[in-house]
Amino acid sequence: MRKRQGILIISDGLGDRPNKELNGLTPLEKANTPNLDKLVAEGICGNVYPISAGIRVGTDVGHLEIFGYDSNEVYPGRGPLEAISAGIEIDDGDIAFRGNFGTIDENNIVIDRRAGRIRKDTDLLANSLNGMILEDGTEVLVKELTDHRVAVVLRGEGLGKEIICTDPGTACEGEKLVKPIAIDENDVKSNKTAKNLLEFTMKANKILKNHPVNIKRIADGEEAANIILTRGVGQKKYMPKITEKFGIKAVCIAGDKTVYGIANLAGMEKYAEDDFTANFDTNIGKKAKKAVEYINKGYDWVVVHVKATDLAGHDNLPLKKVEVIEKIDKMVGYILNNVDKSKCYISFTADHSTPCEARDHTGDGVPTIIWGEDVRKDDVKVAGEKYFMNGSLNNLTATDIFMLQMDFMGFTKKRGA
Amino acid sequence: MRKRQGILIISDGLGDRPNKELNGLTPLEKANTPNLDKLVAEGICGNVYPISAGIRVGTDVGHLEIFGYDSNEVYPGRGPLEAISAGIEIDDGDIAFRGNFGTIDENNIVIDRRAGRIRKDTDLLANSLNGMILEDGTEVLVKELTDHRVAVVLRGEGLGKEIICTDPGTACEGEKLVKPIAIDENDVKSNKTAKNLLEFTMKANKILKNHPVNIKRIADGEEAANIILTRGVGQKKYMPKITEKFGIKAVCIAGDKTVYGIANLAGMEKYAEDDFTANFDTNIGKKAKKAVEYINKGYDWVVVHVKATDLAGHDNLPLKKVEVIEKIDKMVGYILNNVDKSKCYISFTADHSTPCEARDHTGDGVPTIIWGEDVRKDDVKVAGEKYFMNGSLNNLTATDIFMLQMDFMGFTKKRGA
Repeated sequence: MRKRQGILIISDGLGDRPNKELNGLTPLEKANTPNLDKLVAEGICGNVYPISAGIRVGTDVGHLEIFGYDSNEVYPGRGPLEAISAGIEIDDGDIAFRGNFGTIDENNIVIDRRAGRIRKDTDLLANSLNGMILEDGTEVLVKELTDHRVAVVLRGEGLGKEIICTDPGTACEGEKLVKPIAIDENDVKSNKTAKNLLEFTMKANKILKNHPVNIKRIADGEEAANIILTRGVGQKKYMPKITEKFGIKAVCIAGDKTVYGIANLAGMEKYAEDDFTANFDTNIGKKAKKAVEYINKGYDWVVVHVKATDLAGHDNLPLKKVEVIEKIDKMVGYILNNVDKSKCYISFTADHSTPCEARDHTGDGVPTIIWGEDVRKDDVKVAGEKYFMNGSLNNLTATDIFMLQMDFMGFTKKRGA
Repeated sequence: MRKRQGILIISDGLGDRPNKELNGLTPLEKANTPNLDKLVAEGICGNVYPISAGIRVGTDVGHLEIFGYDSNEVYPGRGPLEAISAGIEIDDGDIAFRGNFGTIDENNIVIDRRAGRIRKDTDLLANSLNGMILEDGTEVLVKELTDHRVAVVLRGEGLGKEIICTDPGTACEGEKLVKPIAIDENDVKSNKTAKNLLEFTMKANKILKNHPVNIKRIADGEEAANIILTRGVGQKKYMPKITEKFGIKAVCIAGDKTVYGIANLAGMEKYAEDDFTANFDTNIGKKAKKAVEYINKGYDWVVVHVKATDLAGHDNLPLKKVEVIEKIDKMVGYILNNVDKSKCYISFTADHSTPCEARDHTGDGVPTIIWGEDVRKDDVKVAGEKYFMNGSLNNLTATDIFMLQMDFMGFTKKRGA
């Protein structure tokens, strides 16, 4: 089969609902998007479910599905994904957690789950804990993530993952640090993990409260990052690399660590720069240029991720979301004008919907386009959730869209003969 | 439930993409198809996925899905299917291969994988090998197929199927005959098969090179068909007959041996004549007449298969594909004019898309119609991939279409009460 290239643009949390501030339009319908409209008019489109109708997904699960995985089979939980995003190479028996630097008082009451949203010097705090050896020989790996976030991995013999973690949870400030226990009291392996997590947590508290970074924070009137609150426990799962399965060379251009962590697991290279911030100030123009550069270098599949649409959704900022979409449209325009139409498909989708008024991910379908010279064209001419309901891709799933891209590019295997 | 009859017309590889030679239309959109248009205007339509979006299938897997099977469950590999097409009744323990008559030199180098595309007297060559008993008592069944193709079955105790076969593969002429080995050297059963396949291959070579057919071929300056190259090894899988499952009497009218082999497995009778060639010169008019005859004889389901659309796709002949489609349209017209509308549904589909410019099967949906007096009508009026995107069957699957036909005909069982 002849081979082609493909670029996939992912606008995180793009999908929305009719919004009062936008006179009943969605941000995508409201935005001025001549380039997305061109993709729509010359391609196929639809609102596509990340998994199936009404199933809400996180960024991690949404991206697994966009990369063609059955997340039910491969999703290891957020802990292992965050550890991978942090650059920790987790092994088969490791138990991984996502965590926050938090603040507790002398009675172990959680005063602040994010230690005053600490942003600086968390690398120094993490380093002071990384490599700790517990009583039974289990090693603890600790690595800072964005802002107050941190990844924790227990590495030792015979550890289980069925435990209650230490974080009392969102909106539970003022409650006590949770004592970790195995969910089933007869589960020897998980009991061992719970004991180790408790030991680590208390030893970490001792080290952190005397750490120079925290002594300075207290002197400055800031909250001490004197505890690590863990949640999202999990273990690595077998996940075949799509780059090997389909025989493609692929790269993910992104500022969001979760996204490129998953892309990495899928076998893709990652490309990030300091001004790819996973925030409103991310350098979208540079992402577009990099995408075209990778296509010119001969990469088969180039994925470009923009987080800001999701942030606008969570913060209920519909006008901001419109603004971000118009920036993304310019990125699409640059790509459209700079790739060889006869050799490259351009696709556009989202990992989930984050409607502004809902301020959270919902199970609505996500606006999706596949454009290319020999793609059958449907009748839709303009980008927007309400128009895409008439599109030929409507009600398909994220993995359908992945398979269609691989098939257009010529990398699917024929079943049968 | 009241019973009705149904005719299904399968246009192999029909689905296509916008084609430059046809001013951006597909062959089906370009063709003049008054009868298909009538089916569309009075029925329901859509582009239907053989399995799901972007999954490429072969003719064999595509037809299994059209006949309502989950090919993942029942597909036995090409070897057993070819053996069945050749008329060999394979048993549970048998190991079946598809093969070619080929030409090797005295050093076992493959000179020609198809023995100069031999077309004549392969029955004599196959007969000279059929029934060979190997050292351990295993019997070999050999039966010619179309042109240079041949089916080989090993029948004996304790044979496994996980082996590397003898054919060095497409585009590997000039390489040596492959020595068959078990993929896992500790797999006793597959080792036994590999040893038997080697013994058969060398004994067959001895018999074939001295065969009068080959002596004459050499005298005529043609290549000797002195070896059988095997591939596609497999074993029979359990496959319930749809004729029994649904209680229908069904027949498949086809010139293509793979297709009527699968139809046979599904429990259908086959009807073929010499001028049903599985080629451009097939007698489409006669197929239409036969279909009506079978309906008049009281058969519940009559399947008519035309291969030529697929051939035109593989050969990148869009105008030829248009011509074949117009012939098929006449067949549809004959059927429409000669069946009792109040008793018979007419359906139309393809096993997969073979877009001319791709020259291979792709994972695009296939144009599909269901017509009948009491079928709900959608708004589509004209046959063509782009119109069918608005059809009510769009994005369904081949097995959905099978179930709809069985249900219209009144042969489905109610789940629950």
